Amino acid sequence: MNLAGKHLLCTQDWSLAELEAVLELAEDMKRERWSDKYARVLNRKTFFMFFYNPSVRTRQSFECAATELGGHAQFLEPKSMRLKTKKSAGETIEDAAQVMSRYACGIGIRILEDQVSAYGEGQELCEQYARYAQVPVISMAHDKFHPCQGLADIQGLWQHLGRDQLKGKRLLQVWGHGSLARSWCSVQESMLICSRFGMDVTMAHPEGYDLDPAVIEQVKKNCADNGQEFTVSHDPVSCYDDADVVYARNWMHPTAYGADGKLNKAAEIERALQYPEWICTEDKMRRTRDALFTHPMPVDRGHEVEDAVASGLRSIIYDVAENRLHVQKAIMAMTMRLEE
Amino acid sequence: MNLAGKHLLCTQDWSLAELEAVLELAEDMKRERWSDKYARVLNRKTFFMFFYNPSVRTRQSFECAATELGGHAQFLEPKSMRLKTKKSAGETIEDAAQVMSRYACGIGIRILEDQVSAYGEGQELCEQYARYAQVPVISMAHDKFHPCQGLADIQGLWQHLGRDQLKGKRLLQVWGHGSLARSWCSVQESMLICSRFGMDVTMAHPEGYDLDPAVIEQVKKNCADNGQEFTVSHDPVSCYDDADVVYARNWMHPTAYGADGKLNKAAEIERALQYPEWICTEDKMRRTRDALFTHPMPVDRGHEVEDAVASGLRSIIYDVAENRLHVQKAIMAMTMRLEE
Amino acid sequence: MNLAGKHLLCTQDWSLAELEAVLELAEDMKRERWSDKYARVLNRKTFFMFFYNPSVRTRQSFECAATELGGHAQFLEPKSMRLKTKKSAGETIEDAAQVMSRYACGIGIRILEDQVSAYGEGQELCEQYARYAQVPVISMAHDKFHPCQGLADIQGLWQHLGRDQLKGKRLLQVWGHGSLARSWCSVQESMLICSRFGMDVTMAHPEGYDLDPAVIEQVKKNCADNGQEFTVSHDPVSCYDDADVVYARNWMHPTAYGADGKLNKAAEIERALQYPEWICTEDKMRRTRDALFTHPMPVDRGHEVEDAVASGLRSIIYDVAENRLHVQKAIMAMTMRLEE
Repeated sequence: MNLAGKHLLCTQDWSLAELEAVLELAEDMKRERWSDKYARVLNRKTFFMFFYNPSVRTRQSFECAATELGGHAQFLEPKSMRLKTKKSAGETIEDAAQVMSRYACGIGIRILEDQVSAYGEGQELCEQYARYAQVPVISMAHDKFHPCQGLADIQGLWQHLGRDQLKGKRLLQVWGHGSLARSWCSVQESMLICSRFGMDVTMAHPEGYDLDPAVIEQVKKNCADNGQEFTVSHDPVSCYDDADVVYARNWMHPTAYGADGKLNKAAEIERALQYPEWICTEDKMRRTRDALFTHPMPVDRGHEVEDAVASGLRSIIYDVAENRLHVQKAIMAMTMRLEE
Repeated sequence: MNLAGKHLLCTQDWSLAELEAVLELAEDMKRERWSDKYARVLNRKTFFMFFYNPSVRTRQSFECAATELGGHAQFLEPKSMRLKTKKSAGETIEDAAQVMSRYACGIGIRILEDQVSAYGEGQELCEQYARYAQVPVISMAHDKFHPCQGLADIQGLWQHLGRDQLKGKRLLQVWGHGSLARSWCSVQESMLICSRFGMDVTMAHPEGYDLDPAVIEQVKKNCADNGQEFTVSHDPVSCYDDADVVYARNWMHPTAYGADGKLNKAAEIERALQYPEWICTEDKMRRTRDALFTHPMPVDRGHEVEDAVASGLRSIIYDVAENRLHVQKAIMAMTMRLEE
Repeated sequence: MNLAGKHLLCTQDWSLAELEAVLELAEDMKRERWSDKYARVLNRKTFFMFFYNPSVRTRQSFECAATELGGHAQFLEPKSMRLKTKKSAGETIEDAAQVMSRYACGIGIRILEDQVSAYGEGQELCEQYARYAQVPVISMAHDKFHPCQGLADIQGLWQHLGRDQLKGKRLLQVWGHGSLARSWCSVQESMLICSRFGMDVTMAHPEGYDLDPAVIEQVKKNCADNGQEFTVSHDPVSCYDDADVVYARNWMHPTAYGADGKLNKAAEIERALQYPEWICTEDKMRRTRDALFTHPMPVDRGHEVEDAVASGLRSIIYDVAENRLHVQKAIMAMTMRLEE
């Protein structure tokens, strides 16, 4: 399977076979982490990490990934680039992407809500880079999607449920109250990829906390294609019934962006804190089919989830976090392999 | 040719034979980019990049260069160093440079107009580092010169005109209007190195936009030494006549520094925008001898040059940008090769 | 000797035999710096450098160290991590340390006075990371201790006095006036490790500039265990009598933290500048037994020490600075060696 040169902005853009190939390679890379099997995959090659938003975890895992493949990832903050915008002079993305393609074997981009003036602009920026770059562009999380997280989630489920055991299992994607005003990217990616792999999906949240309607339509379609159900619940307790996997995480209200297009974090947090019943507890977990607990981290303990669950025997959060490393190595290896 | 330990603050400080040796090695490094021929040149060695001014492009190309030679370039911002100045306590440059020489195999420095209080202070700082460092000091662009850019320019001309075809060709170094208040370093380096390689030089700009008189004297001398002409024009159209290479780029007015020694960017941009006729257009390019278009990037499209020229068939801007990588690898290899 | 997995927050936590093993390896790594003997010790492995306080020198030496061992050190600034505090939501150190242990083979932490609200909180933070991390945690200087500096100091004394010549030699740890309001970590570590290696110790400072009483008690005990003396002097001249090693450096007054727990640097500097007689001069050095001069750098020349001493024949400051690289490589190699 030849994925050389392929961009990755959302797992939905890739075929199931392609995603499975990445996950199989990720599993092998986990086993062979310190052998020399993959030691020269990015030998002396460079991956650019463009952080419009800073992130310690994503930076750590991508930079480790490049190092372990024999290459190097550069931590770049575009705020010191003068890019052309509607209002200011500067370099066009076409020029920037063309030149970067002469230096690097791949480009990662992270751009979240607070760096754009409306939902979807991060996606547009990533698409523009992908249009002009002659090397693969990989989302390191943008306002709509987070494909590397989605792949790490599935790898965790393969590890803990068994590779062929996802079909028909129920994912509970449940909103958590809290004070971090979080992006839609991880939860949207989770429902998209889990439904691709044959899980049925319950999305639960307080009234009004809807996600991107186009994404939800796609999740429904994925479920239907696999003969599975997609359900919405507004009950923070009964939604746990019969879940096999519980993924409890805060996300922003669709009106988080103000009239000026600016994200109002303070107001958003105040609103989110009005729903303390939306926390994942041991009691609620007893309603499930001994569900796994997962989360993309960082976990907001005491808000999104109780310590007893997050640190409990069924929590797979550290394994999923580790999987970020493995899937990112696999993505790099498959998309950035150059003829030597 | 032994260049080990040699500093590079301006191409004028090096002999023509030395510059040619760098360019020949850069060409070979381009051909052998992913072979193992140069894989151990900086094996496990470190190059320090000191960015008094941030720069995405220069950082990308230097860090890639070190990686591709088997070493590593550290991105350092001296603002977290307490260096001694006239006004404040701190470490002397002597101490800093001596210690850095114990760790690294070379030091790059970037310091532009807005980090100094008068033109020439960046050059002084680079010279101080060079005096005390026991490893090569390489300018990554300072207020006066930009030797790596100059070498990348010539490599581009070798590639597109032919290595032995520069003598007698006409370089048009033409001011561009725009809103970026740019340094003199690239354009001064360009005229110095092009005249060394036997080109004749036309410098064109609105009245008053003079460059460093000492540099211009040297360019004249270089031209005379090669039996070529140096001409100044204040006509934004006729200056294109008979050019073989057009290099259109904004630069600051000599009075950009205010009475307080501070660079006044806003006033400088306002002044520069008064000359909209100083843009490189397809019409003007028709007056040339089918000239190449070059620029050190980032290009301020619509101000310095029309899209049709910057993206046209005779534009070599991406190749020249790529050459930054190759010449920087060659400079590192020749100046920092340690006995193993 | 198996030190795999061992944390290093203070040399006092390690046995003398362990410290000697590190120093012997550091000496061999200095000799074999560019041979391939240690080229794969951290092959493709990652060390995380967590800089709560920025530092150019410490970052340079740690990042070089990892590169020279075949690995890579990531420069991380936790200010972009949302860590849980008493006042704010965020990730727990347990979660952060657990995940980092999945990516990296070791974690370095630097946290000095101005990033904590009371002396000792930096130590607590390091201990918390050490408790939860499954990889070694190395102090890159925190408010109480600076073990890598202490080891570099001893390596310098081995080099200039002879490995078996430290016992009975006199260290003068003398306060220097100046304007940098410096941490206690280096000087406390110096007295702890020098007394471990059998030196007698004179601590000299103006009345009131006491250090951590618990640390001083330990230094006294170390001296007593070796049959050596610990003396305190408040005379900036006679304290030099019979010294074999002079280590002159500023440190903060114990009342530097204000009522609000904030470090008041301006007031601290004003106080320190009232003692101009506390400078290390050539005249004073004549009272010693031809003492070596040492300092962890950056040196505040003209305040802590005269140029003639800092740049004199008996100054070992650059060698000690270089030793930071060697001891850090040795520490990494011994604590982070993974089974391959």
